Amino acid sequence: MSAHPVSSARADSAKVGVWIVGARGSVATTVTVGAAALAGGLASPTGCVTELPPFRDTEAPSPAELVFGGHDMVGVPLTKRAAQLAEAGVFPGHLLGQVDDALRAAEHEIRPGAAPQEDGGDGESQAGTAARLASDIEEFRGRNGLEQVVVVNLASTEAPPEPHPAHASLPALRAALEAGEAVLPPSSLYAYAAFTAGCAYVNFTPSAGASLPALDELARESGVPYAGRDGKTGETLVKTALAPMFLHRALKVRAWSGTNLLGGGDGATLADPDAARSKTETKARAVQEILGHPVEGLVHIDNVPEMTEWKTAWDHVLFEGFLGNRMTLQFTWQGCDSALAAPLVLDLARLVALARRRGESGLLPAFGFFFKEPMGSREHDLTRQFDALASWAAGGVAATGDAVGAE
Amino acid sequence: MSAHPVSSARADSAKVGVWIVGARGSVATTVTVGAAALAGGLASPTGCVTELPPFRDTEAPSPAELVFGGHDMVGVPLTKRAAQLAEAGVFPGHLLGQVDDALRAAEHEIRPGAAPQEDGGDGESQAGTAARLASDIEEFRGRNGLEQVVVVNLASTEAPPEPHPAHASLPALRAALEAGEAVLPPSSLYAYAAFTAGCAYVNFTPSAGASLPALDELARESGVPYAGRDGKTGETLVKTALAPMFLHRALKVRAWSGTNLLGGGDGATLADPDAARSKTETKARAVQEILGHPVEGLVHIDNVPEMTEWKTAWDHVLFEGFLGNRMTLQFTWQGCDSALAAPLVLDLARLVALARRRGESGLLPAFGFFFKEPMGSREHDLTRQFDALASWAAGGVAATGDAVGAE
Amino acid sequence: MSAHPVSSARADSAKVGVWIVGARGSVATTVTVGAAALAGGLASPTGCVTELPPFRDTEAPSPAELVFGGHDMVGVPLTKRAAQLAEAGVFPGHLLGQVDDALRAAEHEIRPGAAPQEDGGDGESQAGTAARLASDIEEFRGRNGLEQVVVVNLASTEAPPEPHPAHASLPALRAALEAGEAVLPPSSLYAYAAFTAGCAYVNFTPSAGASLPALDELARESGVPYAGRDGKTGETLVKTALAPMFLHRALKVRAWSGTNLLGGGDGATLADPDAARSKTETKARAVQEILGHPVEGLVHIDNVPEMTEWKTAWDHVLFEGFLGNRMTLQFTWQGCDSALAAPLVLDLARLVALARRRGESGLLPAFGFFFKEPMGSREHDLTRQFDALASWAAGGVAATGDAVGAE
Amino acid sequence: MSAHPVSSARADSAKVGVWIVGARGSVATTVTVGAAALAGGLASPTGCVTELPPFRDTEAPSPAELVFGGHDMVGVPLTKRAAQLAEAGVFPGHLLGQVDDALRAAEHEIRPGAAPQEDGGDGESQAGTAARLASDIEEFRGRNGLEQVVVVNLASTEAPPEPHPAHASLPALRAALEAGEAVLPPSSLYAYAAFTAGCAYVNFTPSAGASLPALDELARESGVPYAGRDGKTGETLVKTALAPMFLHRALKVRAWSGTNLLGGGDGATLADPDAARSKTETKARAVQEILGHPVEGLVHIDNVPEMTEWKTAWDHVLFEGFLGNRMTLQFTWQGCDSALAAPLVLDLARLVALARRRGESGLLPAFGFFFKEPMGSREHDLTRQFDALASWAAGGVAATGDAVGAE
Repeated sequence: MSAHPVSSARADSAKVGVWIVGARGSVATTVTVGAAALAGGLASPTGCVTELPPFRDTEAPSPAELVFGGHDMVGVPLTKRAAQLAEAGVFPGHLLGQVDDALRAAEHEIRPGAAPQEDGGDGESQAGTAARLASDIEEFRGRNGLEQVVVVNLASTEAPPEPHPAHASLPALRAALEAGEAVLPPSSLYAYAAFTAGCAYVNFTPSAGASLPALDELARESGVPYAGRDGKTGETLVKTALAPMFLHRALKVRAWSGTNLLGGGDGATLADPDAARSKTETKARAVQEILGHPVEGLVHIDNVPEMTEWKTAWDHVLFEGFLGNRMTLQFTWQGCDSALAAPLVLDLARLVALARRRGESGLLPAFGFFFKEPMGSREHDLTRQFDALASWAAGGVAATGDAVGAE
Repeated sequence: MSAHPVSSARADSAKVGVWIVGARGSVATTVTVGAAALAGGLASPTGCVTELPPFRDTEAPSPAELVFGGHDMVGVPLTKRAAQLAEAGVFPGHLLGQVDDALRAAEHEIRPGAAPQEDGGDGESQAGTAARLASDIEEFRGRNGLEQVVVVNLASTEAPPEPHPAHASLPALRAALEAGEAVLPPSSLYAYAAFTAGCAYVNFTPSAGASLPALDELARESGVPYAGRDGKTGETLVKTALAPMFLHRALKVRAWSGTNLLGGGDGATLADPDAARSKTETKARAVQEILGHPVEGLVHIDNVPEMTEWKTAWDHVLFEGFLGNRMTLQFTWQGCDSALAAPLVLDLARLVALARRRGESGLLPAFGFFFKEPMGSREHDLTRQFDALASWAAGGVAATGDAVGAE
Repeated sequence: MSAHPVSSARADSAKVGVWIVGARGSVATTVTVGAAALAGGLASPTGCVTELPPFRDTEAPSPAELVFGGHDMVGVPLTKRAAQLAEAGVFPGHLLGQVDDALRAAEHEIRPGAAPQEDGGDGESQAGTAARLASDIEEFRGRNGLEQVVVVNLASTEAPPEPHPAHASLPALRAALEAGEAVLPPSSLYAYAAFTAGCAYVNFTPSAGASLPALDELARESGVPYAGRDGKTGETLVKTALAPMFLHRALKVRAWSGTNLLGGGDGATLADPDAARSKTETKARAVQEILGHPVEGLVHIDNVPEMTEWKTAWDHVLFEGFLGNRMTLQFTWQGCDSALAAPLVLDLARLVALARRRGESGLLPAFGFFFKEPMGSREHDLTRQFDALASWAAGGVAATGDAVGAE
Repeated sequence: MSAHPVSSARADSAKVGVWIVGARGSVATTVTVGAAALAGGLASPTGCVTELPPFRDTEAPSPAELVFGGHDMVGVPLTKRAAQLAEAGVFPGHLLGQVDDALRAAEHEIRPGAAPQEDGGDGESQAGTAARLASDIEEFRGRNGLEQVVVVNLASTEAPPEPHPAHASLPALRAALEAGEAVLPPSSLYAYAAFTAGCAYVNFTPSAGASLPALDELARESGVPYAGRDGKTGETLVKTALAPMFLHRALKVRAWSGTNLLGGGDGATLADPDAARSKTETKARAVQEILGHPVEGLVHIDNVPEMTEWKTAWDHVLFEGFLGNRMTLQFTWQGCDSALAAPLVLDLARLVALARRRGESGLLPAFGFFFKEPMGSREHDLTRQFDALASWAAGGVAATGDAVGAE
């Protein structure tokens, strides 16, 4: 039974909060614009998985039932950010006027968040910061009369955290925090705050987030579900559609090399080698886990500010066929990361809210479809991931095929 | 019960015949070289689906248990053809000496076949030609003490046949043939001969083959299975791996354009617009059936003799994402058609022989995995096709998801 | 000496008219928007060759000195067309308001033009149509007090014209027109009108235009210069930059294949095989003339309306290197045709006006730099074409290296 | 007047030696195989610039007049190396038997060379090593009765050398060497040895070689010519063909990114970041010097051993056109480095020998056509470089357009 049950007032108030960590970033702004556009019937739900047949008749909240808020350290207001994105071609400029009210409403629900340094900054202890963050979320829920809130991490990618004994169990973590220690990376501190506030949590970045055992314990104790990590939006999406082809046809992939050119904030963040490491590791893993063996080749992530909000990925696959024949497959993917990510963030908020409504808690392994690193599953094949998610939505067992827990 | 049961002598003689229509073509030659290389332990089974876990423990015959023969109108002997293919880089030249005996043995089992014109040529009636072809196959079976023979069509692509009432039912077809009429395209005449000789049949080309209702009736009457059509080896293989990605992510494909550059005999055949029509139709259909709607864009097949045995396909996919954002995916596939097709031909011969051993007859809808136009199924998603074939191999129901018969 | 000398009032009135045939098309609209943006200091002259060092100090008119008018059969006004182009991303929407006056002024100078059928339509004889067209241009010149007018053909591509004896000499042409015969394709009728009105002429399309010997005679008689044909804006531009590399390095191009995907009006026009023939012929010729031998491979032009104003070309070059080694070069060009063509149209109008000011008449062979089919020259190497144009601009001999007349 | 005049016995003995540093590498082996194939009429001179019209009637020695020898630290004999290259598809296997004698003859002329460490190894002083290397070359010249010897550096790329005062002038260098100091990187030590032996020198690698002022002085003192550096064989070749297109059309390149995947020894060498630095610096410089401004974007060189002797480069160019329009050009180059480099090495040996015959000494600025970093010139435009070389060959002034000395 859930320690934080969904509000019984649901019949009257089906509003669900979406609390975004990194609420003024490109993706978050596109999410806010997009939800308003969908709610207002100003755009078709292209890119929204939840609107596909297996999902559209579930009890997931509709875009019009979502209320937005979040944390961010950056001061640029949402309306200005939205204008910049329209200028860069992420969405048409004529939408700006139509979603202005929605952007201003969301803007009023943004709070300063935690400083990127692990001690919370300004002498505040991590325990104190967590309490403040949780309080921000709880006030958002109360102020808006929300049935529940889903916290979504869209903040800049962090470096992989240093291992710490306090990560291993909830009692150890609580003891460390009570002792005033700073043991959690920011993304995990937010996950901690979300769970203590009784909220579901989605990690759309490769940062640690809720992946520490202590936090998994906390989620289950709090009776809230979570999903992650690292949204599968572009190059990796294509890779996990293509890699099964080689596997199923018994073709041996000899080398898989990739170069990603991207601008925007993401490009700048990933110019930091430590942050990039989080990303390139999850990007390389999917292919190797599908194929079942290590594969030669590097993945580059280049910051090219002139690309603005756009991204181009080139992949080169060298494979061996019958009688030693060498062949190649290359692809070029040209997309807009925010436009690819935003509908998935909406999908995740809606479907994780549905999971909460169904009383599920802890990790949601059926959600691997959305992620480069599908927590709780080793299945990366996109079709099988879709089928697993559809099966979950239909109320069936979340057949992820290769659950990690089953080993 | 099968009218043509598998020979009861199987314990002693598990040899299975593979009778190739177009036995001296590039693919057939590579099949013959490859089977000998596998049987002799000279090559690893890369590209051979039957060697993957779901299939490797079935009772399908091994490459060493296959015996080759076939029909062809071309006089260039297999050993010379093999030398040309090695020169073009299809397989390493050092194999030639090692498989020389196998090529000579297969060469002795090649018969002239039917002329491409529909009357069988030289005043021979189609009924007479069919009897001669069937007799060639039966003699091959007897001479080599074979448990069974699988006939595989690898001949040049024909134009789509003119509709004829005799195609609609077996009695009508028999009546027409007895009346001396020439009503069948060559590929269908070979299928007719195969079935009357009690042999299973595989159509690896887009030609009509066994797709006429009258021939389906004959296959079931003869108790033999068949599969088809048009081997999915290159551009379409990639398309059916990629198209589900757009579907599952609710991304709208706005245009899908493709250009295929190929040399070899296939390039020359497809320079004939009528023959190309068979091919471009099946190539375009897969994407549209996966996505569920028509898609703008053409598919070109260019004969570029300088490409010799190699093929390059470029595809350009324009798709729409969230809020009307336009993005593109392009891929370039560079492969050797014979090296891609040959292991699939071996797989089909082995698995269709297995179906025969299991007493199956008529169309094998679970074999759609191998084909651009999966007869008996509308499922083109490669992962689901693989799972359906694996399920069939495991003895389960051939769950093709979207059987045409179920409509 | 020129029969139509430049107005002596030049010191007071340096205004030069640009009369566009196809004045409401995508390219013409972008030209008009762009000239206004440049004149108003609203845009940098990116893409404008005339602003490069070898040209910027010549006496060519500036963008602010150009006045626009033209013929068109289409009724959509320029302001509406411009809004559509901004929506498609050809130029930023914020320009629209700033160039509105300029668009309206140009709109007032657009006349109906000749119907595409060769008889001028409505019973009007070609001689009568030509006189009407010339009169439109002369009135434009007078009304605006222009020093001179340059007529630029941007109309839809025509099929190659049927040969006719009247094309061979000016007397024969005049006799035929006086006899009421319809012997000229529309583009040549416009060139005839331009020359009789004493105007220079630029053919930016692959249509016949001024390429008939009779019209060359007329241009020289009228003392006006002309240049053509078929603007080199995209795929062919890249081809003529790349092909010399193979030549200079003694690498043998074995096959050069290309596919062009384009929407817009151009895509629709070129879906007509006759019109496409004009285009694919000039597109294939450049590479073969650079390399000095025929090259295997086709050029496709596909109409893909979903591409709107954008174009993607993929080229595949198979070449042979040392000791028979086979290698490939592929390129993908993704551009906006109107944005590529428009600055070249401005360059041509300005530089042809300069030629006129210098007293040049007849064909301008030094202008091959701008064209897929450089009339009067066989030089396609882009660097050499640039050097020839720069040399001409500097007042030197137009050293085109391989003048056709020299043969 | 030359201190080391060409042997007066030339009429009787036109043999020219080619002494390769790195004589058993892939390129050197292909050079040796190729020269023998050309001399024996077994291959056409595809890829040989010297066989093009501007060069074929000069007094450059023919391939049959070249005699091969060199230094190498690696022990794998040329015949074995050649067999490996044929296996990898660099040249057809049937050549091996036909050039066996030539390979064995070259093998007998290979000496151990200098250890890669700068002190020459084993306590030998650099002065001593240089004397030994020079003596090896002189003995080769005498033993074979050669008119002259051209030394060509094909050894593995070194890291950029530490600056040292002794590099600045010949007296300072001589003093340092006499004092037993190790001041030269290996490639420069070889250049020193070549010049003291009175031999011309070609640096086909990005290593320092003869680029130090002291060595330039020595070459002029010795009356021998030299050329360099870093053979322009693949990605950079294409870049210097394409970059002028953007310049001449006033299109602004915003970002130029490149990824090179290569195996072979070159791939392994360049996996060392220091060595790669030499390469990526010269690779990036060409585009920036052509365009005249810095350009965003990185160049990656990835070691992908599975690529064996083959290389694939992908370049992505983001450029701005008229009115701020953003467009892209991408190319993929798939080549065999040894097959691309080998004919250029033959060209350089032949044309530098010609320069020597003509009495030229010191740097040959007209040879920039062959190099990524054209010493003595800032001209990278391939067409202009070709024209400059052709002009030199015709005996005219080496008009490189932008000679560095002119500054």
